[in-house]
Amino acid sequence: MGRGRVEPHAFIIFGATGDLARRKLLPALYHLSMAGALPPECRFLGVARTNMDEPAFRRLARDVLKQVRAGPGEDARRWCEDCLFYEQVAAEGPEGFQALARRVRGLEEETGLPGNRIFYLAVPPKAFGPVIEGLGEVGLNRDGGWKRLVVEKPVGHDLESARELNRLTHRTFDETQVYRIDHYLGKETVQNLLVFRFDNPIFEALWNRDHVESIQITVAETGGIDGRAGYYDGVGALRDMVQNHLTQVLSLVAMEVPAHFEADDIRNEKVKVVHSIAPVRPEDVVFGQYVRGRVEGDEVPGYRDEEGVPRDSRTETFVALRLEVANWRWQGVPFYLRTGKRTAQGVSQVVVTFHRPPVALLERFESRPLRSNVLVVTLQPDEGFDLFFHVKMPGQALRLEAENLHFRYSEAFAQRIPDAYETLLLDVMEGDQSLFVRADWVEASWKLYTPLLGAGIPVHDYSAGSWGPPEADRLLPAGMSWWNDGGAARGG
Amino acid sequence: MGRGRVEPHAFIIFGATGDLARRKLLPALYHLSMAGALPPECRFLGVARTNMDEPAFRRLARDVLKQVRAGPGEDARRWCEDCLFYEQVAAEGPEGFQALARRVRGLEEETGLPGNRIFYLAVPPKAFGPVIEGLGEVGLNRDGGWKRLVVEKPVGHDLESARELNRLTHRTFDETQVYRIDHYLGKETVQNLLVFRFDNPIFEALWNRDHVESIQITVAETGGIDGRAGYYDGVGALRDMVQNHLTQVLSLVAMEVPAHFEADDIRNEKVKVVHSIAPVRPEDVVFGQYVRGRVEGDEVPGYRDEEGVPRDSRTETFVALRLEVANWRWQGVPFYLRTGKRTAQGVSQVVVTFHRPPVALLERFESRPLRSNVLVVTLQPDEGFDLFFHVKMPGQALRLEAENLHFRYSEAFAQRIPDAYETLLLDVMEGDQSLFVRADWVEASWKLYTPLLGAGIPVHDYSAGSWGPPEADRLLPAGMSWWNDGGAARGG
Repeated sequence: MGRGRVEPHAFIIFGATGDLARRKLLPALYHLSMAGALPPECRFLGVARTNMDEPAFRRLARDVLKQVRAGPGEDARRWCEDCLFYEQVAAEGPEGFQALARRVRGLEEETGLPGNRIFYLAVPPKAFGPVIEGLGEVGLNRDGGWKRLVVEKPVGHDLESARELNRLTHRTFDETQVYRIDHYLGKETVQNLLVFRFDNPIFEALWNRDHVESIQITVAETGGIDGRAGYYDGVGALRDMVQNHLTQVLSLVAMEVPAHFEADDIRNEKVKVVHSIAPVRPEDVVFGQYVRGRVEGDEVPGYRDEEGVPRDSRTETFVALRLEVANWRWQGVPFYLRTGKRTAQGVSQVVVTFHRPPVALLERFESRPLRSNVLVVTLQPDEGFDLFFHVKMPGQALRLEAENLHFRYSEAFAQRIPDAYETLLLDVMEGDQSLFVRADWVEASWKLYTPLLGAGIPVHDYSAGSWGPPEADRLLPAGMSWWNDGGAARGG
Repeated sequence: MGRGRVEPHAFIIFGATGDLARRKLLPALYHLSMAGALPPECRFLGVARTNMDEPAFRRLARDVLKQVRAGPGEDARRWCEDCLFYEQVAAEGPEGFQALARRVRGLEEETGLPGNRIFYLAVPPKAFGPVIEGLGEVGLNRDGGWKRLVVEKPVGHDLESARELNRLTHRTFDETQVYRIDHYLGKETVQNLLVFRFDNPIFEALWNRDHVESIQITVAETGGIDGRAGYYDGVGALRDMVQNHLTQVLSLVAMEVPAHFEADDIRNEKVKVVHSIAPVRPEDVVFGQYVRGRVEGDEVPGYRDEEGVPRDSRTETFVALRLEVANWRWQGVPFYLRTGKRTAQGVSQVVVTFHRPPVALLERFESRPLRSNVLVVTLQPDEGFDLFFHVKMPGQALRLEAENLHFRYSEAFAQRIPDAYETLLLDVMEGDQSLFVRADWVEASWKLYTPLLGAGIPVHDYSAGSWGPPEADRLLPAGMSWWNDGGAARGG
């Protein structure tokens, strides 16, 4: 994250005509090039099964860049012509990869590249294995220069499949070459969690069981499954969100201070958190599935009415759960995780509730029962921090109110907040693994959640536009509620 | 502070034609009456040496209320006619007070008041003794109903004179009847210090030597001596500001949690703080006196050029000092106090600087050397809290910046912030001594500062419009500076 130097390299995208490549990767690569972050010798090679020639791929790229308004058309045209290439790899098996190897080596030779290569797998999970094996068979993982492999989630669908994929990957790339992307970790405010904790001793002093009552982590989306029933159904929110994004955020929130601010020091601490989590009991997990309702004013169909979803699907689109990090810092502090689709608001936040005063000296002066001190870290939207505290209301009588000390990125900084993919791609190019998910973390996380997959946890209906099924509230102790207001409310 | 009930009473103001009565007391009494805070039977009796009849005093009061725009003229006229009276007490000795006693008892009889009386001494210090003794001689401190005595600062001019005044006072009133005003304690944000500390466990957890590096308390005024050379010269800033206001704020900042939120529990803890302060060494004190300069754009004369000030006066108009509260909570944490007239800005604030992280894990990412975590409590102007912390700057590189979580009364509450005198007068009427200065505190504070009065501390010139003499900076350790920006700046 400290920003090293980007060396000239070839960047090879598998799945170059797919959704992720078009929405995220091509715009991010273009922006990084235009920002001068990359040496001009860098070459980007799209690879896909799609029968398309190079000019057609470049037109596709230019259309994409036009859609995201990526600056002047002439710059985009020249970038596509000079830097962007395409290779169709149609067939399974060695022939396709042999042709690809010739193309890569040819491009490198023309450009004078030293063999530094990034392989980005923007392909469906089932293609991970064949692509990695194919690269190994034709030796693209060897030759001179460095080699890096970027893998998108999901890494497996349970503990066994994740282990198998890691084993397969490690036959061709060693772990220092593997960059497992969790795009949540590229977000500014998620990165800022580390700064917040480890460069602000006043907060770190409070960050433990002596001061914290509970922690809530919410990642809620107003969107549905966006026509991706084929991927989503049978996967569900526990695999799609909890095992990776929410547990990553939890790891950053709960981790100990690392020995150094370096990739493996940080990742050692993150995996330690997951190892410390006590097995999650099925009765501490609530699944939900949305039914027809209104989201932000619009009528939307239920999950089972979405195109491609079986009418009797029991896939969960909502998960709320309670877990404990059973270590010296956190023993006894409940962590509440919650994620859902078609919720009332789209918001990602970490809510740290602190203990009440040991003696309620001033309780009788409270204008009404006030929340105790709460820190809300809003990851999106409107990134920032709110620290709720009690103040005297103006006036002769002593009456207390809960107000918030607040900080908003948008108020403090004029700079554009970079897209998570730009941040993460640049990290890959610089060889900084800090924000990427290590194999042992993936396996530790699957080990935690895999027992829940076949546990027969009931799936409760909830209306689209709500905050999930009412059963989720019963995970919390009496008098406590989920924080549902995006950090904007005044507490109370 | 909890607001009890105001019982019908007679409110007797000594010095009723003076500056304080006109600027503060009459407007505050009128506002409280109009706000319905007082029973309609309350009667206000002005007492002074001034040869003036009752209609003339009522005209004076109406003029005063007009000047402070205290609502409709008709309301003010009726209030003056119905509730406001005047008694000239010209002579020293028993005759004047005997006439006063007849007047008070007559008023009470007419109105059906039960003998509840508040005596407010808005007179010069040398009159305190004679008035208190006069009240005792004619028995106004006795009869049925409660009696309360309100005394303005200064309470003495050194330890011996303060003890003598307290002894004299206690011959006529016991300590539960005495309300020593420090108008700083009536300010919203000063009262809020107690709420902030004792209803917000996250801050109280940090409020000790384990987390705090140092504390600065500044009360700076752009004004000069306002033509009050007769009072000020020979008194100076140590007696006028440090011994009372600054040390009161210090007591609230440093005190332990009281057993209950009641007047004497709070005052027990405040006096304990002063008892815990180690003797202040003369070398830890810097005196200054302003010379000609520019304040907020206007050329102003030096102190020795002010009307009524001897040309060779060495009275200090600025004090900066360093002291230690030598108890378990604060041992080793320096407290820096500073006050001055004709400073660059008018600001009262408490600045709590916390320790740096024990290991500077992220220091290399700081955009420039950043301040450590700092809490700024601004008492005036623009009352509020700023908590400076380090955040990641938006952008791909990890760069840190100091930003502030902030809270402003004016943004959070629409209510008018009441004048300190209204708050304090209402407290007197309700019999709540929480915000008043107890005799033992006054003596403890004088005990601390009296040794400095004759210590021959040199008085350094400073330009009006500056932050005092450069010698004040030398009280601070290398790399630290006085916080000079009213909480508005972004730190750094």
